[in-house]
Amino acid sequence: MRQTFEEMTLTDEQLLEVERQMAEYTQGVDDIIPTEELRMKVAKSLLNNRPLKVKLGLDPSAPDIHLGHTVVLNKIRQFQENGHEIHLIIGDFTGKIGDPTGKSTARVQLTDEVVKQNAQTYFDQFGKLIDMDRVVLHYNSKWLKGLSLEDVIGLAGKITVARMIERDDFEERLALGKPISLHEFFYPLLQGYDSIHLESDIEIGGTDQHFNILMGRHFQEKFRREKQVAILMPLLEGLDGVEKMSKSKHNYIGIDESPADMYGKTMSLPDELMPKFFTLATGFPQETIEATLRALLSGSLHPRDAKMKLAKRFVELYHGEEAAEQAEQGFKRVFQLRLLPEDMEQRKISDGESLTLLEAVMKFDLFSSKSEARRMIAGGGVRINGDKQTDGDAPILLKAGMILQVGKRKFIQLKD
Amino acid sequence: MRQTFEEMTLTDEQLLEVERQMAEYTQGVDDIIPTEELRMKVAKSLLNNRPLKVKLGLDPSAPDIHLGHTVVLNKIRQFQENGHEIHLIIGDFTGKIGDPTGKSTARVQLTDEVVKQNAQTYFDQFGKLIDMDRVVLHYNSKWLKGLSLEDVIGLAGKITVARMIERDDFEERLALGKPISLHEFFYPLLQGYDSIHLESDIEIGGTDQHFNILMGRHFQEKFRREKQVAILMPLLEGLDGVEKMSKSKHNYIGIDESPADMYGKTMSLPDELMPKFFTLATGFPQETIEATLRALLSGSLHPRDAKMKLAKRFVELYHGEEAAEQAEQGFKRVFQLRLLPEDMEQRKISDGESLTLLEAVMKFDLFSSKSEARRMIAGGGVRINGDKQTDGDAPILLKAGMILQVGKRKFIQLKD
Repeated sequence: MRQTFEEMTLTDEQLLEVERQMAEYTQGVDDIIPTEELRMKVAKSLLNNRPLKVKLGLDPSAPDIHLGHTVVLNKIRQFQENGHEIHLIIGDFTGKIGDPTGKSTARVQLTDEVVKQNAQTYFDQFGKLIDMDRVVLHYNSKWLKGLSLEDVIGLAGKITVARMIERDDFEERLALGKPISLHEFFYPLLQGYDSIHLESDIEIGGTDQHFNILMGRHFQEKFRREKQVAILMPLLEGLDGVEKMSKSKHNYIGIDESPADMYGKTMSLPDELMPKFFTLATGFPQETIEATLRALLSGSLHPRDAKMKLAKRFVELYHGEEAAEQAEQGFKRVFQLRLLPEDMEQRKISDGESLTLLEAVMKFDLFSSKSEARRMIAGGGVRINGDKQTDGDAPILLKAGMILQVGKRKFIQLKD
Repeated sequence: MRQTFEEMTLTDEQLLEVERQMAEYTQGVDDIIPTEELRMKVAKSLLNNRPLKVKLGLDPSAPDIHLGHTVVLNKIRQFQENGHEIHLIIGDFTGKIGDPTGKSTARVQLTDEVVKQNAQTYFDQFGKLIDMDRVVLHYNSKWLKGLSLEDVIGLAGKITVARMIERDDFEERLALGKPISLHEFFYPLLQGYDSIHLESDIEIGGTDQHFNILMGRHFQEKFRREKQVAILMPLLEGLDGVEKMSKSKHNYIGIDESPADMYGKTMSLPDELMPKFFTLATGFPQETIEATLRALLSGSLHPRDAKMKLAKRFVELYHGEEAAEQAEQGFKRVFQLRLLPEDMEQRKISDGESLTLLEAVMKFDLFSSKSEARRMIAGGGVRINGDKQTDGDAPILLKAGMILQVGKRKFIQLKD
């Protein structure tokens, strides 16, 4: 691309459209390499009325999607909504090879059937985030299995060993004397080759894909193709707030988890991660995100309330509005219970005693009169285990551990 | 091979034969890795009446054979003479790929035709050293071109990056920041694969092939084959006495060079290289070599005479006995000229003067009487330019620069 952006003859309307798209694409990214080329590509796509090819590579061995993955998918959706072409590449070729050293049990050889199943799982889950009807799906074995040794050597001739070793994890393992099997060099090599084959304009991935995505750029240049732009998204931390969210670390929020689990897990996130999660994983419009974060910063929004908004949003995205509402209610109940004083008054019962709510509250002297008790129950001021009880005549089976609550401050816990 | 040598049930005769062969094979080597396995293989070949497969890889791009190459061929011949199978592998596959980086003009892409021509050149020259009728010739493209990317990754999975980088030249280039193209890793890899395919028992090469030959051993082990033994031969230095003999260094003695060049170049070798050349390149029986080296050491053999023996031997090996005799004579003449005193008496002549030899020697007062002159001429005591002149009546055309010599000490040189 020798032409500069200034030399392109865009109408004012097109210029505005380029900048509108760029404002979206740059939002929340860790890096775009290089931004100016992305602007050129967007402009050219408008001039030539040709959508950009946006590539996303997928590992066929771990198809369970968690919120960490949605960061990239949300970015992908922006491109899709602006009319660009989304190309998903299932890396089945390397998956089917497995680990030739036989050392890694994680990278077992996948059969065609498992690969197809996993791809279907991706499809089902991705449908919650992007329009799968307007996605082009590829299995890279289609072009990779036809490569000859000669082709591979030709490819390997376009990259130096020093460059390969520069990859962070390779460098570290070499320095520590930990083995790197030579076949591991093939994965970035072939990911790069995928970009040549696809003639991708853009490849999107997490920052951990920095090296591999730049391989695509490198090889496209060596093979005299137009180079793809790398869009690198931050990695979401997991529930521990420290490690990258991942299945193997058991610190993830899966998008197929139950509403209650999703809501509850989100509420357990450290407060300081909220800006990142709002920005990268909610898909809220930019203005909503900014307003929320400002309110958080000024103190007008309590962190707990912000987090509840976040949790509700996630359930809404992956299970719908009704489920989100229910999950919030459920959480509130549990949340109330969590606010119980630690030194509650204990009251002895005979296990299995059965009486009405009204009889029960009177038995434990929670009210001075039945009429006061009735009034409070009807007004929603009485809870058992955090759940409001509005029917004084409802039968109650008293059990050890049960908590009776009146208003906000009066609690008793039953014991044998 | 779990059995030890001691556990093999060999007859006394077989034991003697094993040790006889081992004495030959160990002669002059830089290293055998490992010697004990070679002994086992020789023993097994006797027990099973099965010849060993001895592998020699050849680069199809540089088919001109020099004395440096003959070191390995002499070792090969020993195996051949003991009935083992010689397998020559023409590395045409990598040769036909050329250098994918396009940087090296040395490694240009060879056509099928050139590869065949070069192989024929090998054949013609090797015939001077080994029995080409009892050699199995392979082109490694036959099996390598059928390898798929999957096969290559499987192969690469059996070796670590650290191990590859250990190769001396790779390690040095990495340390110096000089680029190593990734495709260079394929050469040792594929040389190793050749050994798997061939099921070679032994691979022979120069010490510069140490790493590549051990690759074969490594891969055979990984693919659960019996491992080949590496026989590493010392590298012959070239005429400069310092650098390895090689065509690119212009310091070589080619086996197709003219007898005079071969003889003369050998005479220009530094004295201290003679033991090495005798041991590695003459093919003399061990006793002859040892006797010569002892005589040299004791001073009973003059280094110049030893070198003449060496030079004559080389011409004899590659051009036959008669040519060797002539080359020696030719050298002796030139050699005599080289012993001329630097301050010879100068005698003025008129250019183009013609007279007989007798007239000439008398004209320049080399003798006090014609009869003395005739006697000396007849006895071979007179030379012109180092060549004996025995006919006093032969016409001589006097020229500036011409040297007339009587006996060993009397010289005159003619000038205009």
